[in-house]
Amino acid sequence: MLVEGGGGRGRGRALQAGLREAVRDGRLGAGTQLPSSRELAADLGVSRGLVTDAYAQLTAEGYLTSRQGAGTWVADLRQGPEPPTPPAFAADDRGGPDDLRPGLPDLALFPRAAWSAAHRRVMATLPHRALGYPDPRGLPELRAALAALLGRRRGVAADPDQVMVTAGVAQAHTLVGLALHARGERRTAVEDPGSPEHTALLAATGLTAVPVPVDGEGLSVTALEATGVRSVVVTPCHQFPSGVACSAARRAALADWARDRGGVVVEDDYDGDFRYDRQPMGALQGLAPGHVVYTGSASKSLAPGLRLGWLVGPRDLVAEAAQIKRTMDLGHSVTEQAALADFLVSGAYDRQLRRCQRLYRARRDALVAALSRHAPGAEVSGIAAGLHAIVTLPERYGPEPRFLAAAARAGVAVRPLSDYRTAARPAGEGDDGRVRLVVGYAHLPPEAVARAVRLLVQGPVRDARRLSGEAGEAGR
Amino acid sequence: MLVEGGGGRGRGRALQAGLREAVRDGRLGAGTQLPSSRELAADLGVSRGLVTDAYAQLTAEGYLTSRQGAGTWVADLRQGPEPPTPPAFAADDRGGPDDLRPGLPDLALFPRAAWSAAHRRVMATLPHRALGYPDPRGLPELRAALAALLGRRRGVAADPDQVMVTAGVAQAHTLVGLALHARGERRTAVEDPGSPEHTALLAATGLTAVPVPVDGEGLSVTALEATGVRSVVVTPCHQFPSGVACSAARRAALADWARDRGGVVVEDDYDGDFRYDRQPMGALQGLAPGHVVYTGSASKSLAPGLRLGWLVGPRDLVAEAAQIKRTMDLGHSVTEQAALADFLVSGAYDRQLRRCQRLYRARRDALVAALSRHAPGAEVSGIAAGLHAIVTLPERYGPEPRFLAAAARAGVAVRPLSDYRTAARPAGEGDDGRVRLVVGYAHLPPEAVARAVRLLVQGPVRDARRLSGEAGEAGR
Repeated sequence: MLVEGGGGRGRGRALQAGLREAVRDGRLGAGTQLPSSRELAADLGVSRGLVTDAYAQLTAEGYLTSRQGAGTWVADLRQGPEPPTPPAFAADDRGGPDDLRPGLPDLALFPRAAWSAAHRRVMATLPHRALGYPDPRGLPELRAALAALLGRRRGVAADPDQVMVTAGVAQAHTLVGLALHARGERRTAVEDPGSPEHTALLAATGLTAVPVPVDGEGLSVTALEATGVRSVVVTPCHQFPSGVACSAARRAALADWARDRGGVVVEDDYDGDFRYDRQPMGALQGLAPGHVVYTGSASKSLAPGLRLGWLVGPRDLVAEAAQIKRTMDLGHSVTEQAALADFLVSGAYDRQLRRCQRLYRARRDALVAALSRHAPGAEVSGIAAGLHAIVTLPERYGPEPRFLAAAARAGVAVRPLSDYRTAARPAGEGDDGRVRLVVGYAHLPPEAVARAVRLLVQGPVRDARRLSGEAGEAGR
Repeated sequence: MLVEGGGGRGRGRALQAGLREAVRDGRLGAGTQLPSSRELAADLGVSRGLVTDAYAQLTAEGYLTSRQGAGTWVADLRQGPEPPTPPAFAADDRGGPDDLRPGLPDLALFPRAAWSAAHRRVMATLPHRALGYPDPRGLPELRAALAALLGRRRGVAADPDQVMVTAGVAQAHTLVGLALHARGERRTAVEDPGSPEHTALLAATGLTAVPVPVDGEGLSVTALEATGVRSVVVTPCHQFPSGVACSAARRAALADWARDRGGVVVEDDYDGDFRYDRQPMGALQGLAPGHVVYTGSASKSLAPGLRLGWLVGPRDLVAEAAQIKRTMDLGHSVTEQAALADFLVSGAYDRQLRRCQRLYRARRDALVAALSRHAPGAEVSGIAAGLHAIVTLPERYGPEPRFLAAAARAGVAVRPLSDYRTAARPAGEGDDGRVRLVVGYAHLPPEAVARAVRLLVQGPVRDARRLSGEAGEAGR
């Protein structure tokens, strides 16, 4: 056994660590008698006290047993076999150069200097008391700043008392889901097509997701009524993934549904900050603040890695969600909250939004231009807002499975709209042999968008040519 | 209506916000016809386009309705009455000058400059990709640094693959509780006396807490076996609140219990970093890594407000917990994780621990000295480690309710041991008229500890004298 380390304390620690490890991995088998402290000290060339200390410590911890004057033995830890190794976690691998999958902002736009400055100011000014266990609803300064921001930019009717800070939109939905479950709810409606994450998350809170179809005006409120549920998760300003903006009539119908049933609408404003050709559509929450829980985050405007989100809702539901957060994680990081509050109040957040808005609009335009150049006949929809669009390619690119295989061969990562459907496709869609894709473009500079689109649509066409060529050869 | 703001865009926004607010709060009642855009523009002295835009935007959002050429009306939002305001949240109010309640470190010791420097380095070096959605188990650099730290300082047997980063110990327990619930468990044992937070947290995950008595050697494993549960939450190194260190025999029995039943032991190492008279007791996890989930945090060593914690457990359970975290909040803040990793690797964390250890030992000594001076006959236990002690006052201070009332009048916040009991007190305790307190001392400088102790014990004595004096007067 090697016993190194600077001073006596270091050598003592090393001896103990070595003994622990040897007992744990079976090199020192259960029941083995250890040499006397005098012998071991002589063997290792260390002081006897160091060995006695180590024996005493490991005996107290349960690795060794001893009887006064009779010696020291290895305890029987009876380590069982390691359980089978579970499948490895794949970190999020999106964001490569030819990756057109939706959901990521451009991480290179994260305002590092400004964020760092906000953090530095916080460390210099935050009172000591604020470093204790936080208010589970969030830091008062941040909740006030968010109420102002969301009122101003998103038409949200928010008093700071109705605002709560969460670890991203995911946690906001988790807390609301758990609160609804505690109220006795067992089912919640979700949009179809929609985000598979909504369904998985609701299941984790004990709620079964009931898919409700989305049409050209948004979620079908008639179909929603027919389900009999009392809560629904929606993306009214820019439906995910279809890109449809909920019509005024549908908004009114949804608000009426909530009032009539005493229902709860959870609004996921996942990309509401970005609208390119006119001013952003105000949040649904403003229309029925007593029935809508608005949720949003800094994941698209700053970075998903910050895990900073928020919800605004009726006071009773916010209090229930805050109580659950208090129990489950005791509140959100104070330093991160204070940094975001500083960032909002200083105007840096607005500057960041304006900068992203400008750049993302150019990328959207690059997508449209590249499609019109490389894939004549392609239709693009849902491009008035957000970070993704629906691209429908003409029949000659289909059928979908062959197109997707060719895209993969061309090295372009892309997701079809069918990935986001829970129920059967509506009549017409997919039957027509056309390929429908959910294309994220915001994370790529314009030239990269153009390149990825070219690779995406030229691969399949080349393949098709080769296939028809082969068929011709085979026919000879 | 006031329409101010810098340019046309600002005035437009202000007009829209004002209209939204007026519709929402009923100043513009449902069905009211709005003036024509020409009239309103003239009234407000703004351009007509600005009014048309506002009408169009608010119509799209559902606040107004309009028929082509016929005019614009206020939509019927039918706001119901606000739900009753729920009880206000009390932020954690601990940490005042005469507060002897346990659970807080000294927040003034938070190493602001070093933490700020770590954060600055992170912002300068973190790759863009790392700002995306994180690995739900945590940043690989931090998991490696934690595995090394916990192996070295706490005798934890940890491979980075078995380490997971959480929002404090609370979230670690929540995730393990939910994973156990998903495996079919419905009951978990907890220590009695113990932390009420454990019971509330387990309930939120669907597990009923079964109290098991703690004696002078730690949790009674015989009583644990009798409950028939397959999981237990323990604080073996410094039981909370009693301060008992689990004996070697009890550690071995607990590990055997876990192996024999295939049970899971959740170890809450809430103050394991601090031991004053000898080296820290190694974590129980090292004895039975296949059956123990070790949980710890930076809440006592740095600050609770950071909400940075970790768990180390069997691979299968860690994978299940990580899957739940991925679903519920998509992982922990990357910037905070990277800052902690930097802090650990740079040696700043060890420096902080040494500094706190030195200061907290002096405060513990101040507590013991003040008790011996101001409350002769008081017994102090559980002081070998941690940030709190059990103080048992002689009979003349009791009974407990009168003592606590007097302490409150003297302005000293303090909690009796009875607050932490779930089941009935063991025979003897409380019957003997002695007052048992759980006294936190680490958050107060030595002179403040001494002052609070003096106030605490002199108040009741003075009261008792006054009462006996009054009784004498009344008897006259």
